[in-house]
Amino acid sequence: MALSKKPVNGMKDILPREEEIRDYVTGIIKETYRSFGFTPIETPCMENIANLSNKQGGENEKLIFKVLKRGEKLHLDTAQTEEDIVDYGMRYDLTVPLSRFYANHANDLPKPFKALQIGNVWRAEHTQRGRFRQFTQCDIDILGEPSNLAEIELILATTTCIGRIGFKNFEIRINERRILKAMASYAGFPESDYDEIFITLDKMDKIGLDGVAEKLKEDYNDAVVDKYLELFESLSDKKDLVDGVDYLLAALGSFLDEEVARSLKEIATAVNEAKEADFTLVFDPTLVRGMSYYTGTIFEIAIPEFGGSCGGGGRYDKMVGGFTGQDTPACGFSIGFERIIMLLLESDFQVPGGGRKVAYLVEKKYPVQKLVSVIKQAREAREAGDQVLLVRMNKNKRFQKEQLAAEGYEEFVEFYNRDESDSSAF
Amino acid sequence: MALSKKPVNGMKDILPREEEIRDYVTGIIKETYRSFGFTPIETPCMENIANLSNKQGGENEKLIFKVLKRGEKLHLDTAQTEEDIVDYGMRYDLTVPLSRFYANHANDLPKPFKALQIGNVWRAEHTQRGRFRQFTQCDIDILGEPSNLAEIELILATTTCIGRIGFKNFEIRINERRILKAMASYAGFPESDYDEIFITLDKMDKIGLDGVAEKLKEDYNDAVVDKYLELFESLSDKKDLVDGVDYLLAALGSFLDEEVARSLKEIATAVNEAKEADFTLVFDPTLVRGMSYYTGTIFEIAIPEFGGSCGGGGRYDKMVGGFTGQDTPACGFSIGFERIIMLLLESDFQVPGGGRKVAYLVEKKYPVQKLVSVIKQAREAREAGDQVLLVRMNKNKRFQKEQLAAEGYEEFVEFYNRDESDSSAF
Repeated sequence: MALSKKPVNGMKDILPREEEIRDYVTGIIKETYRSFGFTPIETPCMENIANLSNKQGGENEKLIFKVLKRGEKLHLDTAQTEEDIVDYGMRYDLTVPLSRFYANHANDLPKPFKALQIGNVWRAEHTQRGRFRQFTQCDIDILGEPSNLAEIELILATTTCIGRIGFKNFEIRINERRILKAMASYAGFPESDYDEIFITLDKMDKIGLDGVAEKLKEDYNDAVVDKYLELFESLSDKKDLVDGVDYLLAALGSFLDEEVARSLKEIATAVNEAKEADFTLVFDPTLVRGMSYYTGTIFEIAIPEFGGSCGGGGRYDKMVGGFTGQDTPACGFSIGFERIIMLLLESDFQVPGGGRKVAYLVEKKYPVQKLVSVIKQAREAREAGDQVLLVRMNKNKRFQKEQLAAEGYEEFVEFYNRDESDSSAF
Repeated sequence: MALSKKPVNGMKDILPREEEIRDYVTGIIKETYRSFGFTPIETPCMENIANLSNKQGGENEKLIFKVLKRGEKLHLDTAQTEEDIVDYGMRYDLTVPLSRFYANHANDLPKPFKALQIGNVWRAEHTQRGRFRQFTQCDIDILGEPSNLAEIELILATTTCIGRIGFKNFEIRINERRILKAMASYAGFPESDYDEIFITLDKMDKIGLDGVAEKLKEDYNDAVVDKYLELFESLSDKKDLVDGVDYLLAALGSFLDEEVARSLKEIATAVNEAKEADFTLVFDPTLVRGMSYYTGTIFEIAIPEFGGSCGGGGRYDKMVGGFTGQDTPACGFSIGFERIIMLLLESDFQVPGGGRKVAYLVEKKYPVQKLVSVIKQAREAREAGDQVLLVRMNKNKRFQKEQLAAEGYEEFVEFYNRDESDSSAF
């Protein structure tokens, strides 16, 4: 059968320039998160298919790459449905595997447990520009911490990372599932419809306040919808988290739990006083986050250079209980790794440091006795911190040097048999 | 459906202690290989199933985790065989994907191209102690370099890595497919049987010279087998590569191409004169390496602490041509990453450096106004290089500190509402 040169549909090869940026960003992330006491862990890329199909993953559960059973376990002749022939699936996020991991190892882990995971996930989405079916996620999670110290540390750690990667003037948008509910309840929507209403609300940035109003009025009483949207109108100039929450405390009265408001204001105070990066914490009452597993605070990263979200997270106090039978408070923050890399690539980012890149080009007929001394010279330069590429000189030396210059080589040393060496800058 | 806490069969969760060692080793590998001019690349974990089933992968092709077709492409009702229902497979090594990658991008890459890949591969093997169905491979390859400069650089780079990870007194065993063939030809075996004979020869370390003799004599003339094994007997005290090759040059006469001998001796000279690590280059005429794609030199790492091989590689000048239609010289060396990690874990290896690990334990009722100053204190310590874990104090503080001490925390600072702080070493 003919071999295909292309990667599988929707997945990509990563060339040296991008991979070097990925390595650099990964290094900053690991170092920063480690300084915040997060410890790295890893789980297998496959999970039992039942763990991935428990309705916690929402739409992602429809996008699973499924793995065929093997050997004696596979009975293709009697198979009726997919369930009969698959046993594993590729993970579509790192949160489900983390919950399973924690359930499996809780006795061996400190409480609270601060986890760092960087790994690939797979989703069989319709391919479109900039979206891939295999991509890297980068998550930190704090398990076993019920107080808002979890949110504070997650936001500080993540924003410190984003800042050290080089982004400025970005936003962390924050909301609370219980504020979403309090506002809907205050307006008079039936509780059973909340999820539907939030899906419409989530479109605010695309269709605007009028669009949301029109859509909601198809199903609900005008008075209810108007009462609901007036809140958002009044909040539109209260981007400051403390201002926004104080407004809602007054407007919603007993519909909003004072404890929820107090906790959000504490997060704002602590984050604003202790932050390292240059960003603004913004109250966004239209922030919904699709995943049904969130139970409290939710947040998102918005970088001005990029329209959409560059990461997000929130509190999900009920998921670990699905594995252990016992609820464990949990809160996580995920950096949109692929989008960060895309932004850096588009801005022509150069990885700083890393030593001089020097290419030693050795003429083909250079005798091996003399080659040994070139190799020794390369060893000394490498030990001194240089990146030394030692290769045979091609016939078309000019083209070879052009290609190497494109890979970042700035200095060339040429070795000919006739004389000792000939150093040249390109 | 009940959720399973365990990872899928044969794959493992990686806990913080192991993951920190893996990160540390990965860091040394990347830094060392980069200094030798290798550039990192990545390919998707899945390949088109046809690329994985082209007979180059030997036994590994029987161990592929296959991925089910999705949506409209899947017709389970009319499916007759596995081929009808799968389109992708999980890669079983990094060499096949590298060959496809190079074929796809050769025009954008310098020639020769020095690639570094670290990534997971999957094999559905029978599970046994210390063998996993998902594991990390770590390969360097030089594509487009026909001369033995490739072998010299690969051996120097890999041994420098192994040395910097902390191993001493190890061996690089080296052989040549063309020496294997010359010896078999000299003894008088029919060329069509070489692969079978080499499979028997490969068992020398388990069944000894007598065992190999007995097995070969089942199928071949005693005189042929004796002539063959006398060579190995004579070579048993010629571990030095130059000595061994010189002996064979004299003994085999025209059966051995002088160019092959000369090239091996050059490798020995260059490696021995320019090496950084503490290892011995050993001629091993019984070294076979299973993969049928090797065409020239083959090598293996042997670490005294571990019985088997801790990595290996060789020249495979014909594989890339399977994708491009044009042969490209290629040579690679793979570090046995999982075995290296296992040896470090068993030797109770401690990751050096990385800053002081300090845990700030904050009493539950500590007010948020005061917490802010603790968070600022943590920020300063983190910026100074410490790893600071900031967590709420548990009721059972003693147990909490014991668990943290097991995670490497040596210093604890406790914050109570009644007074300022109370620092204690555990």
